[in-house]
Amino acid sequence: MEQTLSAIAPILGIIGLTVSFLVLAALIRKPQGTEEMQDLSNQIHEGAMVFLRREYSILSIFVAVVFLLLFWQLGIATALAFLGGALCSLTAGYIGMQAATRANVRTAEAARTEGAGGALQVAFSGGVVMGLAVASLGLIGVGIAFLFLGKDVSTVGAISGFAMGASSIALFARVGGGIYTKTADVGADLVGKIEAGIPEDDPRNPGVIADLVGDNVGDTAGMGADIFESYVGSIIATIALAATAQAGSVIAGLGATSSMMLLPIFMVMLGLVASFVGIGSMKFLKNMHPASALRYSTFVGAALFLVFAWFGVGSLGVTQGVFWAILSGTVVGIMIGLVTEYYTAGAPIRRIAKASETGAATNIITGLAVGLESCAFPVLFIAIAIFVANEAAGLYGIGISAVGMLATVGITMSVDAYGPISDNAGGISEMAGLGPEVRKITDRLDAVGNTTAALGKGFAIGSAALTALALFAAYNSAVSQNLLQKGLPMLDIRLLNPMIMIGLLLGAILPFAAASMTMTSVGKAAFEMINEIRRQFREIPGLLEGKEGVKPDAARCVDISTQAALKQMIAPGLLAVISPVLVGFILGPAALCGMLAGATITGVMLALMMSNGGGAWDNAKKWIEEGNLGGKGSEAHHAAVVGDTVGDPFKDTSGPSMNILIKLMSVVSLVIAPLL
Amino acid sequence: MEQTLSAIAPILGIIGLTVSFLVLAALIRKPQGTEEMQDLSNQIHEGAMVFLRREYSILSIFVAVVFLLLFWQLGIATALAFLGGALCSLTAGYIGMQAATRANVRTAEAARTEGAGGALQVAFSGGVVMGLAVASLGLIGVGIAFLFLGKDVSTVGAISGFAMGASSIALFARVGGGIYTKTADVGADLVGKIEAGIPEDDPRNPGVIADLVGDNVGDTAGMGADIFESYVGSIIATIALAATAQAGSVIAGLGATSSMMLLPIFMVMLGLVASFVGIGSMKFLKNMHPASALRYSTFVGAALFLVFAWFGVGSLGVTQGVFWAILSGTVVGIMIGLVTEYYTAGAPIRRIAKASETGAATNIITGLAVGLESCAFPVLFIAIAIFVANEAAGLYGIGISAVGMLATVGITMSVDAYGPISDNAGGISEMAGLGPEVRKITDRLDAVGNTTAALGKGFAIGSAALTALALFAAYNSAVSQNLLQKGLPMLDIRLLNPMIMIGLLLGAILPFAAASMTMTSVGKAAFEMINEIRRQFREIPGLLEGKEGVKPDAARCVDISTQAALKQMIAPGLLAVISPVLVGFILGPAALCGMLAGATITGVMLALMMSNGGGAWDNAKKWIEEGNLGGKGSEAHHAAVVGDTVGDPFKDTSGPSMNILIKLMSVVSLVIAPLL
Repeated sequence: MEQTLSAIAPILGIIGLTVSFLVLAALIRKPQGTEEMQDLSNQIHEGAMVFLRREYSILSIFVAVVFLLLFWQLGIATALAFLGGALCSLTAGYIGMQAATRANVRTAEAARTEGAGGALQVAFSGGVVMGLAVASLGLIGVGIAFLFLGKDVSTVGAISGFAMGASSIALFARVGGGIYTKTADVGADLVGKIEAGIPEDDPRNPGVIADLVGDNVGDTAGMGADIFESYVGSIIATIALAATAQAGSVIAGLGATSSMMLLPIFMVMLGLVASFVGIGSMKFLKNMHPASALRYSTFVGAALFLVFAWFGVGSLGVTQGVFWAILSGTVVGIMIGLVTEYYTAGAPIRRIAKASETGAATNIITGLAVGLESCAFPVLFIAIAIFVANEAAGLYGIGISAVGMLATVGITMSVDAYGPISDNAGGISEMAGLGPEVRKITDRLDAVGNTTAALGKGFAIGSAALTALALFAAYNSAVSQNLLQKGLPMLDIRLLNPMIMIGLLLGAILPFAAASMTMTSVGKAAFEMINEIRRQFREIPGLLEGKEGVKPDAARCVDISTQAALKQMIAPGLLAVISPVLVGFILGPAALCGMLAGATITGVMLALMMSNGGGAWDNAKKWIEEGNLGGKGSEAHHAAVVGDTVGDPFKDTSGPSMNILIKLMSVVSLVIAPLL
Repeated sequence: MEQTLSAIAPILGIIGLTVSFLVLAALIRKPQGTEEMQDLSNQIHEGAMVFLRREYSILSIFVAVVFLLLFWQLGIATALAFLGGALCSLTAGYIGMQAATRANVRTAEAARTEGAGGALQVAFSGGVVMGLAVASLGLIGVGIAFLFLGKDVSTVGAISGFAMGASSIALFARVGGGIYTKTADVGADLVGKIEAGIPEDDPRNPGVIADLVGDNVGDTAGMGADIFESYVGSIIATIALAATAQAGSVIAGLGATSSMMLLPIFMVMLGLVASFVGIGSMKFLKNMHPASALRYSTFVGAALFLVFAWFGVGSLGVTQGVFWAILSGTVVGIMIGLVTEYYTAGAPIRRIAKASETGAATNIITGLAVGLESCAFPVLFIAIAIFVANEAAGLYGIGISAVGMLATVGITMSVDAYGPISDNAGGISEMAGLGPEVRKITDRLDAVGNTTAALGKGFAIGSAALTALALFAAYNSAVSQNLLQKGLPMLDIRLLNPMIMIGLLLGAILPFAAASMTMTSVGKAAFEMINEIRRQFREIPGLLEGKEGVKPDAARCVDISTQAALKQMIAPGLLAVISPVLVGFILGPAALCGMLAGATITGVMLALMMSNGGGAWDNAKKWIEEGNLGGKGSEAHHAAVVGDTVGDPFKDTSGPSMNILIKLMSVVSLVIAPLL
């Protein structure tokens, strides 16, 4: 059975990818609307593709250099796995971008001609292309790697190269995309909304096209690479834990090593099938309220997966205890999502809005306080998941609980990716002047996207913490195994070992430094963008007045974002790849162990604080814009816009980078473990 | 010799305290200036004393309850030590406050009649009262406790009760004082400077008296309790490390246990003597530039202490290696101070100022980025100190290096406390209308205070990290000893133990939660304060126009600050005391161990980020006010004021609380260790 299963995995992946392409083909056949809409859509598509091309050519250098280094030090298997991971990640981002930049205009058109139900269908099918592509490419890649390397415990370590490829591309894509989108967003908003007093997405604003491109490169391509990375990271961490624990200390009594290694792959196969059903259920749910439809389709997928998993665990001859670890992951993911929803849509946003009445300073103080506060429960839940997973199945349980969170990525990612598509559709309908009725539909879809995204975010952060810990445990097992083989004494990883203390402190520096770098990049680039938009309003006669035929120079703004993103993504990416290598070789494997723990803890805290704080600022502004506390144009609104602007790089650039950073550091450590 | 030394310690402390009183007596005899000045000074003094009285009556309940609990569970020795620590801390705060609220008006008068040199002398002598009181009370308290409990390794554990008393009072005082001062500051600045457009410390502003009281209760009494806590914490952590390591694993080959226990006390005795000389050297340095005078007097004290320490270490029969640990502490303290100075006075503040040109949002983004960035080098230096100290003298070295940083607290605290006195003198001279010449002198003294304070801050944060680690190590030794005696297996504190992972995560929550609570408190109370000041400007006829005889209702503002501080200081304080107890008893000593490590790491990061970020925002605003980028009243200035306001609770409320929080948690754990 094991043999058959591992052969089926890539085949199932190929089926999924085929479905994804069929959905894309059907999507492309949908009507694109007026000439003006098509023109706008082409500008966005072009901008996004130019960015992607230039980003990919820079990344290809990075991939080539690391490939050669890995080949030289660790052999061809690890190097090829790395290459495969990188290529799959790049492909997932590319497919997602193609789908998103096509779905946006078609969603706007559907909203114009068919109303909310039709628009929901189009936007969701754009998301489905991305969701299935991510899940299927992961299954194909990990499946093939496992077919070649998974038969033998001595070669399975090389699979971690695949995760390293996926993680390093993801970090660059997330940081680059995040800088791009927020540079454009901050610039366009500050000058357009506050200084010039024109509405969001107004065609007179030179920064709007860049902002719409940014939604695609940041929220779609960046997020796709991010989720792809989480997905394969959790699978591979669990495989590595099973493989390196051959001494039996980790998985004693759980089952045969080979079954334990196959289990995570089997689980995501079941998850993909469950996702198909979840996606299909949308056909029957489409007449419900969009929020309920998306939510129920997610729940259908998750519930079905849990049923499959219950039987799947038993069928592989693995102890049933492992199922409880999977369940704890799924439940905790949902709980974190609910907390996220509370902090970004509940009472805290009204607290921030209220504080805006006394100005920007009190808005910022309150928003930061909300962000800091919002970490408590999610981290508590993660601690509970660790406890339950460990009780159920030891350290292996921690890995498999992360897999449980992410197995239904096919459906959750579809729901996630639907959000930025609706957002983009709204931008296009505003710029093409489709009228308030159409805008209302897209706004409603967008608002729903924000809420469902909270659930997705819960899974992303929860799984990141668990995956990082699982990778960390796998790293430890790998090093111990290595030391054992060489007859050296075991690693002293007691907290009291000063090298561990030093490692913890050094590790804590990295998320703070990466957050600082990315914030600085957005700050600097936004400064340029603001000055450029101000210049255009000043120097292009008739632009601000909306004179017929006068158009802003949108290309200049697109260029500023592109340049900034490409230049500034390099340093944080290299930081994450190089620091574990330096610490590992200079201070030794124990200090590196401390460093991973330190980075994971502070990274999770910062990720939660920044994501939730940023979301809360955003929605506090929206709440005021709905007419509360004086509504648009009031003093409170001005203050809330400042908060939202600060929150932008928090939630879309720095915060999401943290998740990838901690996993990338762990996976790099796991890959270099045999050398330490 | 050991017998004699431990008997001399409290005597030296009493001598120091006597000198402190003599300086205070001399200070009180100085002229107090015009009737108006005396009236203002009395208002400030009264406000501060009312706050202190009410704060102390609340704290007395806390002290009584904890005293009884400790007596019940751990016996009279620990309970009495706790009481002693709490009383000494309260006394130190009280003396400092008496000195500061007397020195402020006399400094203003000296600036008016004698010029800069005279004013420097008066302000500095106010600081000396505080500096000597802190050092002497510490020596008296720890000295007496050691005389009774230090003869026997089995009773010495009770001394940690003294540190717990000092730390818990310090946390309440810091948080309460911090909320008080920033509520008043934020409120007075936002309405006065931005909305009403009147200068800082203008007598028309109803919040100014509360602001000036705040400088005393926050920057003087709060800081005094803080430094007192650090001082006794580092001494007691080192004693505990020496005592609990009787098995010899920690201090093998370093010297006799009794000498090792006495060494930290001996070092601070030498430090106090060196501080006397440093303080005395001001007599000869007074004609130099104030910044140089203060800096050289600090260096005189530090250098002399190191010479004393070199011989002192040898004379106790302790290995000379311990000296290098002390030296590493002192050097790293200075290095951190220099980094602090760079981030709060160097290029980064111009970066923030520049970003202010595009508004408050970019100012905030850049300031946060600077704060996040500023953690890297200090933490790296702390890691180096740990490495060197551990190489030189094992874990004991980490404790003694913190003692090395703090031994000359007599002089460093004098220099620190001088700052808020000058600030207050400036406020009084503005309100009493002493003219621009006098204000210029006090401003100059104040500016110098900010720079020298950077050095002090370096020592505070560096020593907090090292002390927390030393306490953490002592806790571990105590628990291990306990388990050993009961014949139980040793604690598994390997990073891979899931209980350690859970502890690390739970620990990380606490600094974030405490920061959130204190930020929220300031935000809420400032909101009330702003509305009250707005109300007075609106409802008191002639106030804003400065009509003769119309006075604001300052008492209302003082009351808002007092109420807010007293109410809001309780939760964060209890959080720090209760969480280690809960985790220790429910999840066990290993999880508590992880929790301490998690809290220490994130606490140090947040402390650095908040303190440095806040200082940078403050000085960016000052730099613009000096006439750069458009100067006062420009768009950039408005944005910078927002940044400064956000930075206020960062640097003076939440940031400094972190240092105490992490030590209080560690010392509570150390105290309850015998029960686990």
